[in-house]
Amino acid sequence: MRGFAQRVTVEHAIAWIDSVLAEFRSLPTVELPLREAAGRVLADDVVSPLNVPRFARSMMDGFAVRSEETYGATSYNPLALRIIGTCLPGTPFPTTVNSGEAVRIMTGAPLPQGADAVVPVEQTELSGDDVRVLGEVSAGKHVGQVGEDLRSGETVLASGRVLRPQDLGVLSSIGVGRVTVIRSPRVRIVITGNELLAAGTVPTGFQIADANGPMLESLVSRDGGEVMVSDIVPDDSESIRSALLAPADLVLISGSSSVGQEDHAARLLAESGELAIHGVAMRPSSPAGMGRLPGRLVFLLPGNPVSCLCAYDFFAGRAIRALAGRSTEWPYRQIQVPLARKLVSTVGRVDYARVKLDAGLAEPIAISGASILSSTTRADGFVIIPADSEGSPPGALVDVFLY
Amino acid sequence: MRGFAQRVTVEHAIAWIDSVLAEFRSLPTVELPLREAAGRVLADDVVSPLNVPRFARSMMDGFAVRSEETYGATSYNPLALRIIGTCLPGTPFPTTVNSGEAVRIMTGAPLPQGADAVVPVEQTELSGDDVRVLGEVSAGKHVGQVGEDLRSGETVLASGRVLRPQDLGVLSSIGVGRVTVIRSPRVRIVITGNELLAAGTVPTGFQIADANGPMLESLVSRDGGEVMVSDIVPDDSESIRSALLAPADLVLISGSSSVGQEDHAARLLAESGELAIHGVAMRPSSPAGMGRLPGRLVFLLPGNPVSCLCAYDFFAGRAIRALAGRSTEWPYRQIQVPLARKLVSTVGRVDYARVKLDAGLAEPIAISGASILSSTTRADGFVIIPADSEGSPPGALVDVFLY
Repeated sequence: MRGFAQRVTVEHAIAWIDSVLAEFRSLPTVELPLREAAGRVLADDVVSPLNVPRFARSMMDGFAVRSEETYGATSYNPLALRIIGTCLPGTPFPTTVNSGEAVRIMTGAPLPQGADAVVPVEQTELSGDDVRVLGEVSAGKHVGQVGEDLRSGETVLASGRVLRPQDLGVLSSIGVGRVTVIRSPRVRIVITGNELLAAGTVPTGFQIADANGPMLESLVSRDGGEVMVSDIVPDDSESIRSALLAPADLVLISGSSSVGQEDHAARLLAESGELAIHGVAMRPSSPAGMGRLPGRLVFLLPGNPVSCLCAYDFFAGRAIRALAGRSTEWPYRQIQVPLARKLVSTVGRVDYARVKLDAGLAEPIAISGASILSSTTRADGFVIIPADSEGSPPGALVDVFLY
Repeated sequence: MRGFAQRVTVEHAIAWIDSVLAEFRSLPTVELPLREAAGRVLADDVVSPLNVPRFARSMMDGFAVRSEETYGATSYNPLALRIIGTCLPGTPFPTTVNSGEAVRIMTGAPLPQGADAVVPVEQTELSGDDVRVLGEVSAGKHVGQVGEDLRSGETVLASGRVLRPQDLGVLSSIGVGRVTVIRSPRVRIVITGNELLAAGTVPTGFQIADANGPMLESLVSRDGGEVMVSDIVPDDSESIRSALLAPADLVLISGSSSVGQEDHAARLLAESGELAIHGVAMRPSSPAGMGRLPGRLVFLLPGNPVSCLCAYDFFAGRAIRALAGRSTEWPYRQIQVPLARKLVSTVGRVDYARVKLDAGLAEPIAISGASILSSTTRADGFVIIPADSEGSPPGALVDVFLY
């Protein structure tokens, strides 16, 4: 057993992640049906093969007219036009609108030949087979013009775009039924610890049920990663080496990350690839580590569940979100509230303090050991105390990240 | 054709939704494997059947000792103890630690009989078969006590809880492998419009490809709803009545929501149930409506895609998020930026203005008709102009909701 050679700062670890992400950006592409592509990263530019709309169409329910005939029309001096038919969406109108005529038209219907504007129904009155127009319209009024939304040949969405719900609508409207996106980052979750029983098993003897597997799986899914495998692996060199080398874009190893005699993961990573960082000046999670193997990033997460959560959020989650095309920022809502009590920290390390909100104040959770996972379920969120701070006095405004 | 009898305020429509949500809260429950329950709403309290930890365990890598023997130990006056073995996680230690003895112990390992504290490895030196303790520890130091995380009989999580990743960890650690949650709200998406071709089809003639179906599906999924069915339905009374009455917790009808002659949805809803609201003082989306049928909420969304998106986000999405146990707040990140140009609105209605961010300024999108879906893909977000405002001058700080 030995201590950590050197603990790096949180900033240093994050800078390392950001610097290696570029080369991992080149995940392969995959083609998906449009309806499954929300939130995914577009791999290629999409160019519109057509104009949207492809024909002039009405933007209102009303009457298609020849605009020059409406000049001077008011409610005191209405213009009477003969209604010669109805334009419905999807159907062309068979004849031309001539002088003295109007066509009843629905929103979205193609503008009939001869007409160049639409009078909204609210500016009309019916009178037998005639419509009385109560106001002027100028040419093109309430008409959607060809290509007004999208022009044929225009780049509609650029590669790298994280697809929004409305993007799917736009792609659908130009006839795109399948899109090529970057594959989701595939994550292998490796839970080590010979004392662990499968998640959700009733623990017996001196064994405990794994808490980190289900937690990490849902964190990875939340951040846009795809959990390939999530398994408890025996804490021996052969098993952990196999897990490190099995297919994945990212490997998360929980436990086996400290410097105890049974902690193989860091040594094996250093032997097979690069152990870039081992030990971070933070609490909890100081045994966290990270490195890489050909084609993959590896994160060493402490086995203590609070440390595991914290190291995931600071480091592994950042990489997964970035590779999935999401913001690297935390997916936690942030609010500013005053502290209910003093929050103490040690200069030289970042602290991750769980807090409860009570009457608009942030109350630090008293029991906050790295093994006390319930501190993160009793808490409403957490406060980050920077390395250069000794903490904050009661009443000080702090940023709370809400779970 | 007639105009809207009366447009209600956005606040009125939201208040109506909130008032009827209570009775729709009683969605049935469903039992899920723990790993699939993240983000779901717990249906029952979960009480711990056991203490966590169930045995005193070490919180550090180090040596288990009898604390009273360490009093007075310093690096100048180290205490030598004979190492009688090693405690590993998951395994009981076979003998008792007697005076003058220590046991090498790993984080998480059960504390051996006789020992009552752990000296961290950093405060020790090895010397042959002995360990030299370089500092005092008090009783219980670095030991996780029985029930310190959770007590047997304690309510671990209360019904109504939206399950976080760490909650799954806690449930796993007490042996809970399956949980009972509220069923996700089931949403039927009904796209009307005889001019519509299936989403992603290349449009021909005067027909257009449906944009709203894929958009609404991904919005519903984003907000925690389950899309049961999403179909284009002919715009006739019989088809729309059938869709309204088919199984669902919520029905979203796109199109057929205005007051044109082919707009059946509102009339049919009024005939079969309650058309609570039809017409809202907002732009776009003024033809939006809502009401209910036995056991379900119905939202009438305008067919124009921007109006559809806007009405979904203001009304339908709120209901889905609430029923799914999520915050009713928009899932958009909010930032404050100055306006690049004047943003004009009309007093008496809420405006939903798409804006682009450029050099830290919010630039209103020029082409902003309700049919121009690309205005929402070109935009970075939107600004809401309240009903009592005429807009804002250049430089005014506005809240931008980021898509």
